[in-house]
Amino acid sequence: MTKSWVNSDQGRSDPERPVGSDLHLELSGVGSRRAQLMDALRDAIRSGRLAPGTRLPPYRGLAVDLGLARNTVASAYAELTEEGWLSARAGSGTRVAERATPIAPTHPRRAAPPPRRPFIYDLLPSSPDAGSFPRAAWLTSARRALAAAPNDAFGVGDPRGRPELRHALVEYLARARGVRTDAQRIVICSGFAGGLRLLASVLPGPVAVEAYGLDVHHRVLHENGVRTVPLTVDADGARIDELTGSEATSALLHPAHQYPTGGALHPERRAAVIDWARARGGMVWEDDYDGEFRYDRQPIGALQGLDPDRVVYLGSTSKSLSPALRLGWMVLPAWLVDDVLAAKGGREVFTGVTDQLTLADFLATGSYDRHLRRMRGIYRRRRDLLTTTLARRAPHIRLSGIAAGMHAVLELPDGTEEATLRAARREGVALDGLHPYRHPDSTMPPRDGLVIGYGTPPEHAFPAALDALCRALP
Amino acid sequence: MTKSWVNSDQGRSDPERPVGSDLHLELSGVGSRRAQLMDALRDAIRSGRLAPGTRLPPYRGLAVDLGLARNTVASAYAELTEEGWLSARAGSGTRVAERATPIAPTHPRRAAPPPRRPFIYDLLPSSPDAGSFPRAAWLTSARRALAAAPNDAFGVGDPRGRPELRHALVEYLARARGVRTDAQRIVICSGFAGGLRLLASVLPGPVAVEAYGLDVHHRVLHENGVRTVPLTVDADGARIDELTGSEATSALLHPAHQYPTGGALHPERRAAVIDWARARGGMVWEDDYDGEFRYDRQPIGALQGLDPDRVVYLGSTSKSLSPALRLGWMVLPAWLVDDVLAAKGGREVFTGVTDQLTLADFLATGSYDRHLRRMRGIYRRRRDLLTTTLARRAPHIRLSGIAAGMHAVLELPDGTEEATLRAARREGVALDGLHPYRHPDSTMPPRDGLVIGYGTPPEHAFPAALDALCRALP
Repeated sequence: MTKSWVNSDQGRSDPERPVGSDLHLELSGVGSRRAQLMDALRDAIRSGRLAPGTRLPPYRGLAVDLGLARNTVASAYAELTEEGWLSARAGSGTRVAERATPIAPTHPRRAAPPPRRPFIYDLLPSSPDAGSFPRAAWLTSARRALAAAPNDAFGVGDPRGRPELRHALVEYLARARGVRTDAQRIVICSGFAGGLRLLASVLPGPVAVEAYGLDVHHRVLHENGVRTVPLTVDADGARIDELTGSEATSALLHPAHQYPTGGALHPERRAAVIDWARARGGMVWEDDYDGEFRYDRQPIGALQGLDPDRVVYLGSTSKSLSPALRLGWMVLPAWLVDDVLAAKGGREVFTGVTDQLTLADFLATGSYDRHLRRMRGIYRRRRDLLTTTLARRAPHIRLSGIAAGMHAVLELPDGTEEATLRAARREGVALDGLHPYRHPDSTMPPRDGLVIGYGTPPEHAFPAALDALCRALP
Repeated sequence: MTKSWVNSDQGRSDPERPVGSDLHLELSGVGSRRAQLMDALRDAIRSGRLAPGTRLPPYRGLAVDLGLARNTVASAYAELTEEGWLSARAGSGTRVAERATPIAPTHPRRAAPPPRRPFIYDLLPSSPDAGSFPRAAWLTSARRALAAAPNDAFGVGDPRGRPELRHALVEYLARARGVRTDAQRIVICSGFAGGLRLLASVLPGPVAVEAYGLDVHHRVLHENGVRTVPLTVDADGARIDELTGSEATSALLHPAHQYPTGGALHPERRAAVIDWARARGGMVWEDDYDGEFRYDRQPIGALQGLDPDRVVYLGSTSKSLSPALRLGWMVLPAWLVDDVLAAKGGREVFTGVTDQLTLADFLATGSYDRHLRRMRGIYRRRRDLLTTTLARRAPHIRLSGIAAGMHAVLELPDGTEEATLRAARREGVALDGLHPYRHPDSTMPPRDGLVIGYGTPPEHAFPAALDALCRALP
């Protein structure tokens, strides 16, 4: 589209002089003549050629100039006025609206987010493969779900979350994860952190956590006034025997796949922690963050199935679909539901309805199963490439936690973690050391290692990322 | 599709006896033969006819029975195994997976949400017209936005929110609301309450609030350790002169449309509150919850435009589109951005990315303008019907706050509020009295009134809702 603004004797319009015969707008492009006129006027205003306060010609005059019907121009003026581009006052005609003058661009006091070294390869364990988000299938579900939703879905939300999603989760979690519940005991929340925050406010006792874990989770607990007590972690998960005699009234565990060290909680310990919770009157908080991704055998079922009254099950789409969806769910004992809803405050304040409805359809139509199957294949291949590459190029380095998920721990010789991280940085590789995951109060001797996220890099970049990683190893 | 399960001598299958020649599955319906077989098996399992633990016939045998290729059956078994419907173990064949036994349905200890009297007419001022959510246009934007989004949109989110949305808001807020900012100073949050929570953690001083307001907002502040100080409210908004000498270091105001009493902040008070903030080193928190809906003249521009360094502007889609989207934005002074991001915690934890991207497209393509224009027409008609109906049927009752928004205050004679609410309940009308909006520490004499939300009822029910309301009036 071309358009021009010609004012016989000056580049910018003179606000007090109504632009009349010297207003030249060339209409072209798509849409009706009215839409073309609106586009031309918006463009002239946006570019500053038509200054704030400028009086426009009466619509009759402009209609004659442009060879348009009067109604066309009048309606374009009215619409641009409603949109805020123009303002109309009786006796003063139609003018370009007084808009705020441009402000100087922001230079933050200190950079936020902090300037990061431009890494070439991202092996941080924070995210699944962002390039594999199933956009087309998600949209298909969104279309179906939005068409089918009742009007009240767009009113003030139920603090439990949409019933469509809670019902779909009951079926899916029973089938895929062995979770025993009904839709009344499920509360939708924004990701795992949202659920953790709610639990902290209703179960405030000290919480036993695994000695290696995400410090962001501990911070959420501490910010909500909850103290954390570390439990030693070995290849069979957390040492449940340490709960006996501890002050903890809850235990936050990753039974299917300890994060980050990677073990599964031993069957005897699974039974033991349920026994402890029953005897103590305590609760287990089960973080099932990547339970769907297991490569060596069938997924390990949820601990929740052993005692739905003593286990709160927490899941999310952060590993299975995308952490950017901010969608999670809590499966609660019946007796805890009211307290959690009371803490939520009577209406949904965090989680949007469109993604809830879409995920419900995505689950119910099998799209979630299909996506997980596809991703299991992708991650399994990446894991295999990681193990074979390391076996060939660094046979002295042991890998652990590779039976499941999308991260692994690479065990390093004592005292070499920091130097290895520095070397990796030089190779352009972003990754985590094991030290930051250690609970500061733990009595476990610190271990050196790297936490490698193999889900994050785009498919094509993964072999090169591994190559760079191997160059950095001691 | 029809399918049947015939087991010669019993209704349910015997787990230890492999089902062979007596397994009869009728395949029909849509999709490949493999998909039909999977559907038939899922259906048999779901209905309980194929019990957990039941051994399935070897795939070769079933292939012969059904006249299918062996690969077809093998791949259906494998896929159902991956989905968790079946389990396969070496030496034990393929079985129906052990699923959790059904649990008893939940009967919450106390009902939550509390059982509500089934109202016929909803005149609560909590929500816009839920039936007018622009589903088709929203989906069109979602499709364009998801197709255009870079892969990193599905990774761990920036705590500011998506840049596409922040840029679209800069343009829209400048044009429609006179807000002066750039994309670096905008932080996306989950609705107004999410923004309020963040502000409370970074600007903790006592906050002056209007003596009439939403107690849920005051509760958010109190839960975050912030004390509130009430300011008298009259027809010209909050009494800014009361800030002088008060302990408050911030003032939470609704300059365009006081909530719920409905006045606009007088131009002199707009100037005065900016002067106060500058002199005091304080901040104005501007809640622009329905600034787009003004019927008597051009919308009143945001206070923020007067001094972007002393005003935090808060907006959301809760009135313009739907409170169920949980999407809002804060426009911050440059010096406050880092503190808010630090409080947010380094990554986005609440707001999902798909709606952010969709809203960005919705704004940039003019769909938001079109939707607002349409809704303004609808609400204006409803408001006019409210005023004419009351003028005819209850001329002794004064309406206020009708120049904007989607609610009005109906002033009642002293001492009649409670009886009127009871009468309304009898007529099946849900509405709010004015008393719950009054700050408990206010020195203003309590006023009797009703807060009428005219956005909430569906279009067809509105005349009848008004009729029922009039029957309840004193």
